[in-house]
Amino acid sequence: MAQKNINIVSMREHVDTEADHFFVRIVAEAHTDADVLLNDFRTSLPEDAVISVNPEPEKKIILLVTKEYHCLSDILIRNHFKTLGAKVQCVIGNHAVLQDICMRFEVPFFVVSHENKSKDEFESEMLEVVDKYPCDYLVLAKFMRILSPAFVKLFPMKIVNIHHSFLPAFVGANPYKQAYMRGVKLIGATAHCVTNDLDEGPIIAQQIIPVNHTYTTADMIKAGKEIEKGVLAKALKMVFEDRVFVYRNKTIVFE
Amino acid sequence: MAQKNINIVSMREHVDTEADHFFVRIVAEAHTDADVLLNDFRTSLPEDAVISVNPEPEKKIILLVTKEYHCLSDILIRNHFKTLGAKVQCVIGNHAVLQDICMRFEVPFFVVSHENKSKDEFESEMLEVVDKYPCDYLVLAKFMRILSPAFVKLFPMKIVNIHHSFLPAFVGANPYKQAYMRGVKLIGATAHCVTNDLDEGPIIAQQIIPVNHTYTTADMIKAGKEIEKGVLAKALKMVFEDRVFVYRNKTIVFE
Amino acid sequence: MAQKNINIVSMREHVDTEADHFFVRIVAEAHTDADVLLNDFRTSLPEDAVISVNPEPEKKIILLVTKEYHCLSDILIRNHFKTLGAKVQCVIGNHAVLQDICMRFEVPFFVVSHENKSKDEFESEMLEVVDKYPCDYLVLAKFMRILSPAFVKLFPMKIVNIHHSFLPAFVGANPYKQAYMRGVKLIGATAHCVTNDLDEGPIIAQQIIPVNHTYTTADMIKAGKEIEKGVLAKALKMVFEDRVFVYRNKTIVFE
Amino acid sequence: MAQKNINIVSMREHVDTEADHFFVRIVAEAHTDADVLLNDFRTSLPEDAVISVNPEPEKKIILLVTKEYHCLSDILIRNHFKTLGAKVQCVIGNHAVLQDICMRFEVPFFVVSHENKSKDEFESEMLEVVDKYPCDYLVLAKFMRILSPAFVKLFPMKIVNIHHSFLPAFVGANPYKQAYMRGVKLIGATAHCVTNDLDEGPIIAQQIIPVNHTYTTADMIKAGKEIEKGVLAKALKMVFEDRVFVYRNKTIVFE
Repeated sequence: MAQKNINIVSMREHVDTEADHFFVRIVAEAHTDADVLLNDFRTSLPEDAVISVNPEPEKKIILLVTKEYHCLSDILIRNHFKTLGAKVQCVIGNHAVLQDICMRFEVPFFVVSHENKSKDEFESEMLEVVDKYPCDYLVLAKFMRILSPAFVKLFPMKIVNIHHSFLPAFVGANPYKQAYMRGVKLIGATAHCVTNDLDEGPIIAQQIIPVNHTYTTADMIKAGKEIEKGVLAKALKMVFEDRVFVYRNKTIVFE
Repeated sequence: MAQKNINIVSMREHVDTEADHFFVRIVAEAHTDADVLLNDFRTSLPEDAVISVNPEPEKKIILLVTKEYHCLSDILIRNHFKTLGAKVQCVIGNHAVLQDICMRFEVPFFVVSHENKSKDEFESEMLEVVDKYPCDYLVLAKFMRILSPAFVKLFPMKIVNIHHSFLPAFVGANPYKQAYMRGVKLIGATAHCVTNDLDEGPIIAQQIIPVNHTYTTADMIKAGKEIEKGVLAKALKMVFEDRVFVYRNKTIVFE
Repeated sequence: MAQKNINIVSMREHVDTEADHFFVRIVAEAHTDADVLLNDFRTSLPEDAVISVNPEPEKKIILLVTKEYHCLSDILIRNHFKTLGAKVQCVIGNHAVLQDICMRFEVPFFVVSHENKSKDEFESEMLEVVDKYPCDYLVLAKFMRILSPAFVKLFPMKIVNIHHSFLPAFVGANPYKQAYMRGVKLIGATAHCVTNDLDEGPIIAQQIIPVNHTYTTADMIKAGKEIEKGVLAKALKMVFEDRVFVYRNKTIVFE
Repeated sequence: MAQKNINIVSMREHVDTEADHFFVRIVAEAHTDADVLLNDFRTSLPEDAVISVNPEPEKKIILLVTKEYHCLSDILIRNHFKTLGAKVQCVIGNHAVLQDICMRFEVPFFVVSHENKSKDEFESEMLEVVDKYPCDYLVLAKFMRILSPAFVKLFPMKIVNIHHSFLPAFVGANPYKQAYMRGVKLIGATAHCVTNDLDEGPIIAQQIIPVNHTYTTADMIKAGKEIEKGVLAKALKMVFEDRVFVYRNKTIVFE
């Protein structure tokens, strides 16, 4: 890279001895086109190397939501003040309640109801919207429907979800109710890539907060929202800055 | 209590509206005998109230261990310097490796091997040792055998265990291996009362630490030991200071 | 209270033996008027007891801001979705940049510039705005001017500020620059009541996040914003739910 | 390094653009002598590069203590079970109270009283003991005397101290008393390299725990001990594994 007059700003590596794999993220200043660089790397690196050259982003994203406002609003605010590291192209909701908040920030909102439709129809309608926009990532910002394998397959490791529990504890529905019943002393949230296995995709970020005997299920839900939006924000920052590498069912996150 | 010239130092309450129960912990200075006080409370409070009057402890405890030294040593040090809030009567190990460290602190150590014995025989031998000492609590300080319902029944809510995961994630064996395979970003430890359901007893305390892609299973085990001993120490402090109330399968912890 | 048919939902006490003071917060369901209750307490409790009876709030608040959007937006969102526990009456900014975001939520915004004015004139103009609204608390949501003792005196323990450091470290200006220069491994934020001593008022809540050698001052500022808004949100929740008691220069917070 | 048949296991870099410096830590498997390697690097790297080649440690350390047992015991236990990553050569105490615990682990203990001596005499006597052993680091495990610049100069960046506060808050004596008086909601501990400026050396690790209005100064001291030993343990791990680079008054810690 020195030959090419590329100035390395930072470099992070990870050797996975078990998997016999090597991962490297380089931030560099270059006056060369991304395509040219990519080609250079392709010819000089081993054939089976996975290479990606990203001009400083702005990633483009589409949000899927249902009724809860806390994650969506947090993203809309960052988007509005241009600190998200990505541009929200539009928001798709299977309910209409969050249309108003999107309108306030001039972000296009599309209602695609799941009611009285097969999953296939529902997802086709969503895809029609998605296809209108260039899009690097889909973000499920408290989207409460399970996506089909066929849908997920269209966006491999390009869908980020926030799950309202410290996975793998409390997989599935009503994790806070489960947490309350079990009497845990910590509750958590998990941001992960979506795969075909529900709540089983590669984890990007997790965080917890302490709770105690005074918390009802409703209190846990309320407290949980605070970390849900925090964890999702952190995961998106990592993703949008190209810091997340997925290998098998795990992530390497170069923070 | 004012009539009796009892000076209340602190008072904590919890109303469980769902269970229609009321819990109160009072710390008071009194010049009356504990028995007399208990009797007074019994006559003045409703018949179904559960009442306990504890003179400032020193609780007496017996430790059960296997091979790992970190929790045991932490307790032995506190016991030696009289900051544990309890007195270690003796230690029972199903292996002999931890005998040496106990000897260094003049704490009696008994080897009760589980090998070539039925669980019943093994536990009977342990009980023989336990019966030699007054004992308020059994502490499983990384004791790697599962106790039988018959044994547990003898010490209702009087056995405290440290589990090397953030329950209910990774129940059972090799939680760190499970955590590694799942690619979690946090690992945890849980101190809980032992009931007949493995890893399902009331949780007293939990804590986590962040991990990342550089952690092997061995690294997680090593890092986990640090929180295991911390969480167990915290739970024991709460238990020994009579701050833990168990109701159904949960704890109220008046920290 | 039983006589009056008042149902106690929760009760928290604190005995400050050093100060010889007793603090109690009672949440109760009553069918009596607040004024009547207050009078009852006044006649039955010692003369020097400080008593306050608060119907379930909604507190009314006014925000003071300068240019940074993160704390303000977080509060506006909660206000908009009615989860703040208070109603934002209006926002006063000494710059106009945050007018737009307030307009989007139909919250009145007043520009009161500090330029070419004495502090006295500046504060008088702000007071003119404040006086238009019923107001329980002033919240300094990254308000970058120092208020005069005369102004503070008008709102005793009724002004909440968010300071961008873990007080008492890095008092005064540019705390993140100071933190960067010192090479700390944690940065923090502090929500406190405003008194005449800059950054010295009673602390309500504090929180920290880890940083490391890769953080520039700019990175610390960015990371710090996340905890600033989190700590302020938590402190406001405590304040609005009447959980914060101030005595001398400290708070009792019944969480 | 490939030419020399050196297998890189892990590599971490840091570019300090402000200081125009580059730091790199490489873990590698080699069959070459450390001296030979060092020489190779010296000839191939720029003249002003600071190079150090460390065979897998075992570092050798000497502890300085006063009366508090918690940090010392934690280190002695790890030393005894060979998980410290270093070997404790001996312990020097300016009081005799910790002699007993050292004896229990067959670690030589030397009483060097500071009483009725000039600082110069006191330190000379300590140096006499230190000089008896090969020693890579001095660890101040709650050593309550301030070392002279002359003494510190003998061990540049080779003395690690644990300070019982979240520096730079509460520099100097009685930090917990200061913390109590200020009414903080978090207390902390800081492990740092010792320089001539009291409590001002490069910070290696910091950690905090939440406290509240129920904590007396004594409670804070007790709670603080738990993080003091934790932070010191973490910092020592980093130091002993050659993960800490000191530049100017800051550390780069390749965790």
